[in-house]
Amino acid sequence: MTPQDRVRAAYARLARGERPEAWITLRDEADVLADAAAVAPHLPLAGSLLAVKDNIDVAGLPTTAGHPGYAYRPSRNAPAVQRLIDAGAVVLGKTNLDQFATGLVGTRSPYGVVRAAGDPDLVAGGSSSGSAVAVALGIADLALGTDTAGSGRVPAAFQGIVGIKPTPGRVPTTGVVPACRSFDCVTVFARDLATAQRAMTVMSDADWPADAPLAAPPYPVVAVPGRDQLTGMSDEWRDAFEQAAKTLETAGAILRPIRLDPFLTAAKLLYDGGFVAERYAAVGAFLDDHPDGADPAVAAIIGAARDIPAHRLVTDTERLDRLRAEAMAEWGDADALLLPTAPIHPTIAEVEADPIGVNARVGTYTNFANLFGLAAVAVPAGPLGVQVIARGHADAVAAGVAAMLTATPAPAPAASGLRLLVVG
Amino acid sequence: MTPQDRVRAAYARLARGERPEAWITLRDEADVLADAAAVAPHLPLAGSLLAVKDNIDVAGLPTTAGHPGYAYRPSRNAPAVQRLIDAGAVVLGKTNLDQFATGLVGTRSPYGVVRAAGDPDLVAGGSSSGSAVAVALGIADLALGTDTAGSGRVPAAFQGIVGIKPTPGRVPTTGVVPACRSFDCVTVFARDLATAQRAMTVMSDADWPADAPLAAPPYPVVAVPGRDQLTGMSDEWRDAFEQAAKTLETAGAILRPIRLDPFLTAAKLLYDGGFVAERYAAVGAFLDDHPDGADPAVAAIIGAARDIPAHRLVTDTERLDRLRAEAMAEWGDADALLLPTAPIHPTIAEVEADPIGVNARVGTYTNFANLFGLAAVAVPAGPLGVQVIARGHADAVAAGVAAMLTATPAPAPAASGLRLLVVG
Repeated sequence: MTPQDRVRAAYARLARGERPEAWITLRDEADVLADAAAVAPHLPLAGSLLAVKDNIDVAGLPTTAGHPGYAYRPSRNAPAVQRLIDAGAVVLGKTNLDQFATGLVGTRSPYGVVRAAGDPDLVAGGSSSGSAVAVALGIADLALGTDTAGSGRVPAAFQGIVGIKPTPGRVPTTGVVPACRSFDCVTVFARDLATAQRAMTVMSDADWPADAPLAAPPYPVVAVPGRDQLTGMSDEWRDAFEQAAKTLETAGAILRPIRLDPFLTAAKLLYDGGFVAERYAAVGAFLDDHPDGADPAVAAIIGAARDIPAHRLVTDTERLDRLRAEAMAEWGDADALLLPTAPIHPTIAEVEADPIGVNARVGTYTNFANLFGLAAVAVPAGPLGVQVIARGHADAVAAGVAAMLTATPAPAPAASGLRLLVVG
Repeated sequence: MTPQDRVRAAYARLARGERPEAWITLRDEADVLADAAAVAPHLPLAGSLLAVKDNIDVAGLPTTAGHPGYAYRPSRNAPAVQRLIDAGAVVLGKTNLDQFATGLVGTRSPYGVVRAAGDPDLVAGGSSSGSAVAVALGIADLALGTDTAGSGRVPAAFQGIVGIKPTPGRVPTTGVVPACRSFDCVTVFARDLATAQRAMTVMSDADWPADAPLAAPPYPVVAVPGRDQLTGMSDEWRDAFEQAAKTLETAGAILRPIRLDPFLTAAKLLYDGGFVAERYAAVGAFLDDHPDGADPAVAAIIGAARDIPAHRLVTDTERLDRLRAEAMAEWGDADALLLPTAPIHPTIAEVEADPIGVNARVGTYTNFANLFGLAAVAVPAGPLGVQVIARGHADAVAAGVAAMLTATPAPAPAASGLRLLVVG
C-alpha cells in the first residue's frame, strides 16, 4: 500500500461517518494526498497518518483546545508535530478533546461527546478522546495526545490501544495550550507498542540524561498492588489485573507488593488543591470573558480556582514533595510499577449524571504520575487497560516491561482490512 | 594560639560589650571551651569559632528566627552546621537577624537593631546581620547566614567581609526556617575568601553535577554594567565599582558590557509578586496568631501575602522563566557578572524613616540571583562591596574571579590583635 493508498483508505473510512465527533478539523484529502506523495520513503515514519489533539499547534489549522471562541491559527507546528512530520508522518487533522484538556471522560466538549470506538454507550475517555478513537478505528496510524492527569493513558485503555506518556520534559510542550503547566506532557497513541515507541523516539529531546537506562533489565522487579488495594474495581477487572501481573511473571518479571497510599493521596492534589490555579492562569481570564462555548464542568472547575490563595499552592507543593519522598521510599528498588489504567469504564449516562465525581474516579490510578515526574506506558490487558510506570527518565524501562505484556505482536491495524472495503 | 585560647579571646571580646545586639543566644564559655578542647587538630576547620544565624538549627539551642514566640529547641543540628562541626568548627551561639529572614537591613528584630561593625549610625545590613558583625569584630571566624534576597551578601558588604552564597540546592536547607522556600540558601561569612571557601566546601553536597566547572578560566570573560546603569549610587561608589572592574582587568579578566534590565526587572518579582506567598506559607499563620513579638514591617509584608491568588504565583513563575531566558541571553558567554552588592549603605535613621522603601533599594543588585539559580561571592572593594556572580553550579568560577579582586591576602583577623588585649 502506497502512502497515497493509505490516505485514500483513511478518507473512505471517514466517509462512513463513524464517530465523526472525534474530529474538530479535517484537512482536505487532496492536500493530504499531496503531502503523502512528497514523503521520502526511507524516513522512519514515512506515510504514517497522524491525528493531532486540538490543543497542539499544527501550522495553518486552527487550534481550539475544545472551545470555538479560543481558536487561533498558528503559523508554526509545535516541535512534537514538526519532528513527526520531519520523520515522514502526514497530518490528517485535529481531534476533539475535553475542553482545555480538563477531563478524563471525553464528554466535555462543545464539539460533541466522543463515544468509545468499541461501544457507543461508553465514553471514549479523555481528554485526548478523538485522538485515541481515530487510532482505534484505523483511520490514523499515530495520534498525539497530552497527559496531565491521565489524558494520554485513559483513552488508550478505553479504546484498547497503546498510549505512551513520557517523563515530563522529554517532549517539548511548546505550541501546546497549557492545562496545568508544571505537569503537562505530549503523548502518542498507536495500535501497537513498536509504532508508538518509534514515534516517541522521534519526538523526544536528544539531550536526555546520560545515565538514563536504555532498556529494562531482563528480569525486572515490578511492584504490583494486592487485589485488596484495587478499590472501586469489578471482580472481572481485578481478575484481569492479576492475570496481567502473572503474564509479566511468566515473562521473567520478579513481582513484589507495594502499598499505594502515598501515590493515591498525592493523586488527589491535582484537582483538590492549589495546582488547579495553573489551569486558571492558563485560560481562566478567557473563560471569565467567554461564558458562551464553555463546557459547564470545565468552567466550574477552572472558575473555582480563581480564588485559591497562593500560600495554598505553596503548601500543596511542599505536601507533594513529602508524598513523593514517601512514595519513592515505598517504590524502593522496583524497576516498574504495574497498575490498572482506570478502575472503571463509565457509560456516557453515568458521566452525565455525575460529571465531576465519575471523572475523579476514572483518574484514581493516573493522576499521580506527572505530579511525581514519572514515565508510563498504557497497554491493553484483556478487558482492562494497565499501565507500566517507571521512574523519571526511565521511559525505556516502562516500554521494555510493557513489551513483556504485549509479547504477541499486536493485531494488524484495522486499516489493512479496510483496504478490502475501499479498493476497487 | 590553641583552640581554647581562641575561645577565651572571643569571650573576652564579647565581655567588652560591643554590638551585643548581634547575638540572640550565646553558649556558656565552659561548654565552648570543652568542645574546643575535644577538636581533633588535623580537621580542616579545627577550632574555628562559628556563629550561626538564628534561623538555622543548632541542637540544644533555641531557634527563634528573630521572634521570641516562635522559639523551639531542635534536637538535631542542621546538616550545614553538622558538617562544619564535623570539620572541627566550634559553635559560639546564635545570631540576630531580620525577623524570619525578611529584610536586608538588620533593623527588623525585637532582639535589637544591629549596628554596622564599623559605624554605629549605619545599619549592619540583613537579614544575616549578627553573623556578619560577629565575624567583622573578630569574635567568630566563620558565621552562617542565609540568603534569599541578598541576606548573605549585603551584610558582608556593609561589614567589609566576604560572603559566599552558593547555587541554590548546593547546601541543604534542612533545619532552616524557610523564608521563601524556593529560593533560600545557606551562606557563610569569613574575613577572607580562603576561609569562607574552606567552610563552603565542607558544607556542600558531594553529588555535584559532574560537568560543573572546578575553577575559573585563567582569562575569564566578566560582564560589567556601564556607569550609567548604576542608578541610585553615589559618584564615589561608582568610581569604586569601576576601580574593581579595572582590578579584574589588570588581573587578566576580559571585560564586556551587559544590559541589566532583565536582571533588575526580575529582582522586583521577589517581593512585588506571588512569591511572597511562600513567606506566608512558612510563617503567616503563626504571625496571624502571634501579633506580639512581630516586627511591624515583617508582619506587614508577610500579612499582605495572605490574599495573593494562586494564579498570580503561577503567572509570576512563568514571567520569571521568560526573564531568566532573556537575562541569560544577555549574559551570553560571560564567565561571571560583576555588580555592586548594594547601591547604598543606609543609616539606621534612614531605614526607620522608610523601612520598606530603603530596604527595597538595598536589594536592587542582589534580589535576582536566587530567582535565577545563580552562585555569588561578595567581597569588599574599597568603600564598596561587590559581588561576583556565576551561573548555577559554577560556584568555583565565582570564587576564582572573586580571588582576582582579593589577590592581596586578607588582613589578619582582628582576633590576633585582640589577643594582646585579653591575655595576661
